[in-house]
Amino acid sequence: MVIIMTSEATQRQIDNVVERVKSVGLNVHISVGEQRTLIGVIGDRTKLSETPLEAMPGVDRTMPITAPYKLASRDFRQEDTVIKVNGVKIGGKEIVVMAGPCAVESTEQIVHIAKVVSEAGAKFLRGGAFKPRTGPYSFQGFGEKGLNMLTEAKAETGIGIITEVMTPRDVELVVEHCDILQLGARNMQNFFLLKEVGASGKPVMLKRGMSATIEEWLLAAEYILSEGNGNVMLCERGVRTFETYTRNTLDLNAVPAVKSLSHLPVIVDPSHGTGLRHLVAPMSKAAVAAGADGLLIEVHHDPEHSLTGDSRQSLLPEQFARLMQELKPLATAVEREI
Amino acid sequence: MVIIMTSEATQRQIDNVVERVKSVGLNVHISVGEQRTLIGVIGDRTKLSETPLEAMPGVDRTMPITAPYKLASRDFRQEDTVIKVNGVKIGGKEIVVMAGPCAVESTEQIVHIAKVVSEAGAKFLRGGAFKPRTGPYSFQGFGEKGLNMLTEAKAETGIGIITEVMTPRDVELVVEHCDILQLGARNMQNFFLLKEVGASGKPVMLKRGMSATIEEWLLAAEYILSEGNGNVMLCERGVRTFETYTRNTLDLNAVPAVKSLSHLPVIVDPSHGTGLRHLVAPMSKAAVAAGADGLLIEVHHDPEHSLTGDSRQSLLPEQFARLMQELKPLATAVEREI
Amino acid sequence: MVIIMTSEATQRQIDNVVERVKSVGLNVHISVGEQRTLIGVIGDRTKLSETPLEAMPGVDRTMPITAPYKLASRDFRQEDTVIKVNGVKIGGKEIVVMAGPCAVESTEQIVHIAKVVSEAGAKFLRGGAFKPRTGPYSFQGFGEKGLNMLTEAKAETGIGIITEVMTPRDVELVVEHCDILQLGARNMQNFFLLKEVGASGKPVMLKRGMSATIEEWLLAAEYILSEGNGNVMLCERGVRTFETYTRNTLDLNAVPAVKSLSHLPVIVDPSHGTGLRHLVAPMSKAAVAAGADGLLIEVHHDPEHSLTGDSRQSLLPEQFARLMQELKPLATAVEREI
Amino acid sequence: MVIIMTSEATQRQIDNVVERVKSVGLNVHISVGEQRTLIGVIGDRTKLSETPLEAMPGVDRTMPITAPYKLASRDFRQEDTVIKVNGVKIGGKEIVVMAGPCAVESTEQIVHIAKVVSEAGAKFLRGGAFKPRTGPYSFQGFGEKGLNMLTEAKAETGIGIITEVMTPRDVELVVEHCDILQLGARNMQNFFLLKEVGASGKPVMLKRGMSATIEEWLLAAEYILSEGNGNVMLCERGVRTFETYTRNTLDLNAVPAVKSLSHLPVIVDPSHGTGLRHLVAPMSKAAVAAGADGLLIEVHHDPEHSLTGDSRQSLLPEQFARLMQELKPLATAVEREI
Repeated sequence: MVIIMTSEATQRQIDNVVERVKSVGLNVHISVGEQRTLIGVIGDRTKLSETPLEAMPGVDRTMPITAPYKLASRDFRQEDTVIKVNGVKIGGKEIVVMAGPCAVESTEQIVHIAKVVSEAGAKFLRGGAFKPRTGPYSFQGFGEKGLNMLTEAKAETGIGIITEVMTPRDVELVVEHCDILQLGARNMQNFFLLKEVGASGKPVMLKRGMSATIEEWLLAAEYILSEGNGNVMLCERGVRTFETYTRNTLDLNAVPAVKSLSHLPVIVDPSHGTGLRHLVAPMSKAAVAAGADGLLIEVHHDPEHSLTGDSRQSLLPEQFARLMQELKPLATAVEREI
Repeated sequence: MVIIMTSEATQRQIDNVVERVKSVGLNVHISVGEQRTLIGVIGDRTKLSETPLEAMPGVDRTMPITAPYKLASRDFRQEDTVIKVNGVKIGGKEIVVMAGPCAVESTEQIVHIAKVVSEAGAKFLRGGAFKPRTGPYSFQGFGEKGLNMLTEAKAETGIGIITEVMTPRDVELVVEHCDILQLGARNMQNFFLLKEVGASGKPVMLKRGMSATIEEWLLAAEYILSEGNGNVMLCERGVRTFETYTRNTLDLNAVPAVKSLSHLPVIVDPSHGTGLRHLVAPMSKAAVAAGADGLLIEVHHDPEHSLTGDSRQSLLPEQFARLMQELKPLATAVEREI
Repeated sequence: MVIIMTSEATQRQIDNVVERVKSVGLNVHISVGEQRTLIGVIGDRTKLSETPLEAMPGVDRTMPITAPYKLASRDFRQEDTVIKVNGVKIGGKEIVVMAGPCAVESTEQIVHIAKVVSEAGAKFLRGGAFKPRTGPYSFQGFGEKGLNMLTEAKAETGIGIITEVMTPRDVELVVEHCDILQLGARNMQNFFLLKEVGASGKPVMLKRGMSATIEEWLLAAEYILSEGNGNVMLCERGVRTFETYTRNTLDLNAVPAVKSLSHLPVIVDPSHGTGLRHLVAPMSKAAVAAGADGLLIEVHHDPEHSLTGDSRQSLLPEQFARLMQELKPLATAVEREI
Repeated sequence: MVIIMTSEATQRQIDNVVERVKSVGLNVHISVGEQRTLIGVIGDRTKLSETPLEAMPGVDRTMPITAPYKLASRDFRQEDTVIKVNGVKIGGKEIVVMAGPCAVESTEQIVHIAKVVSEAGAKFLRGGAFKPRTGPYSFQGFGEKGLNMLTEAKAETGIGIITEVMTPRDVELVVEHCDILQLGARNMQNFFLLKEVGASGKPVMLKRGMSATIEEWLLAAEYILSEGNGNVMLCERGVRTFETYTRNTLDLNAVPAVKSLSHLPVIVDPSHGTGLRHLVAPMSKAAVAAGADGLLIEVHHDPEHSLTGDSRQSLLPEQFARLMQELKPLATAVEREI
């Protein structure tokens, strides 16, 4: 960390800051410029996390040099994290596809979709039993009943289950019914929930918040990791920008960015990321080419009778099967498998 | 709602859509244009919230005409909501100021600040016992111990207490120690928490999410209102944009916008909204001029020894007292009181 | 277009609006809802472009149904536009790569780079003679001298030239020295310049403005097209968002989005789009997978002695050559060539 | 400037960077941390503007410490710039109001509006003869004919004229017909135009670009100032964000921010800034309270017959006159006059 003093800072103010930094066991390096004095802090800056240096007289601002997360960083762990779950490795050579409907609507629906996506090559079934909805008057999911339907779909097909948990109280329940816990974009900074899923030890897919920077996203992952749960994968699902043609702006730059900053696997959700069916296939391909470790794709066999309104993005089973075929040569071209 | 058909839509597809709309008890009005057919839906569109019209063949997209929230809307309730709490009216002629530190750090600290802000004219003491922090290694607040300190500050000064609740499980506990429950920006779409504070009946201050549209913010309020709790005030605290000089971009446009769309009181937080001490006074004044019903201001008597790092925005007690004086003629100029 | 009346609109106000619409030769369809009356306008809405309907009493707002551009739209022209220039087809099966330095710095530099990128498979040499720079104290390019250097590079290698024109006065000059005129992001809405390059008839690459929606971008293209110049290609180069890890947020969603809305070729610039060398290769691959018709890539053989400061994004010639090899199987995988 | 080396940087790479910095006549201060070496550059960093340090081996990135603009900065000039034009001082105690229609439509129209806004207290008449329009099919202004109409309005009323210039070629012409040259948001980085209006010496109002940071805005002003024209005022007119209720997000934070960073006057445009008539009055008041030196307000006596479509934001003359009255006590409350 570099502490930048104001141009009017006195020697005494500089001394005070230096003393304060030293008091937590860190060292400093002072650099006197023409206009400003800079104080370089040598050592682990998290020791200063409860020291409000920017409130000290004479301090203009501080500039971090190193990342604020540790366990999530590539510096901490050089090799890629590979998560083994339900016989599948996530983060290895295989690009893992998770597919299914927005919401679990009935046993019949979810078992049917589990079969078709599984046959097409998906390794996990997605489907919400708890649905975060912008307004209180929309369908909020079937809750525990929906979880039981997912369990039945797994019993019939063997496919792994990924489903969302929305609140700390439900973690224990959802853990019993799934292979991967999903944390939604709106809950990326639900810190009690992060700690609870961390404590559960279960594999977690952490979606990026709607306007979360990559750094904030990795800090959210750090909450889970710091509870001792290393089975964290990240999911890029589009960020909020000024553009309105797409529902969100799927930020594929985040894929190679995160892969260089962190050892955690990165999944891409082109369905929520664009909100438009005709963009799902090209953006799935682009995600694979950019280095994604997996895809999360919405599939519904009868979207016009689904219970959730946002159905402009679901692929039909045959569209999904075709996409899976088209992804194969792309995976090969980037030395991956699907 | 208007349903816009694609330019290739067949008559049969149009008929199917019409039938579907009528099946939920609504009526339609069909308008055949040169390129497109539009289907106007007559009646309450929430009846269609579980009907995925956009997934039907021949449908391009739907366009809402009316707001998706009801209880929060000015149409539903013409007169301003006035919330009476601890002998103060929020949303009336008086501009209500809430002030205090970022976090409760000790009984001594919080009682001292309670006294100084109260003397300067603040009607509520703010201070976090539970602190949402971006990274897991930052001070997370004293929890219940902190709540007890707030209660002591109230006992000594009589000032009302506003403090944040972060998770449904803690609502009952926090309710006992405060006059107003604060829901933070990161929890604006924590739907279980919204329902829980709704059920509590306690006055709630709902902060706008970092990248929430005004519509989403009012829908979040609708979650609380629809639980039967009408004591909701909104708090504009800055949104996320590309600008980095300010920590957030305080969006004062939201003040008159919300006042025209809704009957709920609007509070402005220029401290978090800008993140910069020297912008707090001008933006407080601007908020009052724009029609805000209250201000939430960070005050600390010893910011350089506070426990939270983000201390570039706290006012000193004397700065706060001066600001309170300067706000008086502004309040008068817009026919309010402070 | 649909005109949405306020809930208080009187019959007379509705009549006035109808009359006004009919006075420009259009027809209407009136739909009376429970709360609002909607007036659907039948026919070409550009006839209303000088009629301020939203200023009329009783009008709440208007909602467009069709796109505001014509010549640029897929509806106007079904088949893809293919631009033939210097023996190369842009917008056809081949993915066309344009490469070179940020700025033309010397004859020696530009001829050298022309050779290496040409050998690696680039079909056009990029390089700025006129450089738009955020601050007045940065190197602004060699102007006409730089154009002459580009001409020499073409003479020596036969490679096509793409270079930026910044102001209407220079169009004639730049046209003589290049095969494709580049319009920079900051000039996407420099309307006099758009008209001038339109009048020139020369192939144009129009970069997306930093915060331009796709619709605004296509409207800017419409300015060029409406001057009779159909040789327009679009270039996605990153938009401005809250994320700071990348210099811009390369929006690959725009590639399939534009391809569905318009018949114009789309080029992607991963160098400016990300601002980070290690993201150029993965995002180039992703662009190809997403359906881009070409790439614009910064290459410099000696970046640490270049004259422009923003050199974190240049590939070295050997990195560029490797990328060109890696792109081949990806192009094949999406049934293209490179 | 601080140069941050990568964690793998060798001593030789560090030495190379140091040598390079010294070669332009600057000094360095080296700080060896636990993970990284930092090189502090002592002296004027613009000397390094053509030295691509970030391209040098071993360099991770550079971090500026001081602002990249000089003439525009408060450090360069402590006292406020006051621009005297047509007998009015802009940037002094008086809050200067500029008002008028979006476009000049006829002599009758503009003379009439000049009278009514002048009587209500406006000191300058705004009105576009050249209109930047998103699409080519919208009314683009009357050009020189429109300028003559403005001149006639001044002759009849004595009110000062502010009008937009869109391209370098027209600067000379527009200068003859106005008191203040307006540079629109889309032209904030039209660098040839900035230089040309700089060379003209005429007072200039520089609107903030749609997604320009405050730093970029001040750098654009620096272009004008560095041509020797010190008569620059800045105009905040709303930035682009995700919010769609307002057409733009008027960023009032920019007012006190710019006033602290720079000595230049700041004008606020609540009409374009919000795009909504009912927000113009509250945001005008807020602008005054935030410390703005002036307001730019759209006024039209017959908006429903204006020639420009975006008429949702014009005030009627009587609304404008009322607002001027309401602003008086606010100006007094912040020790200004109107």
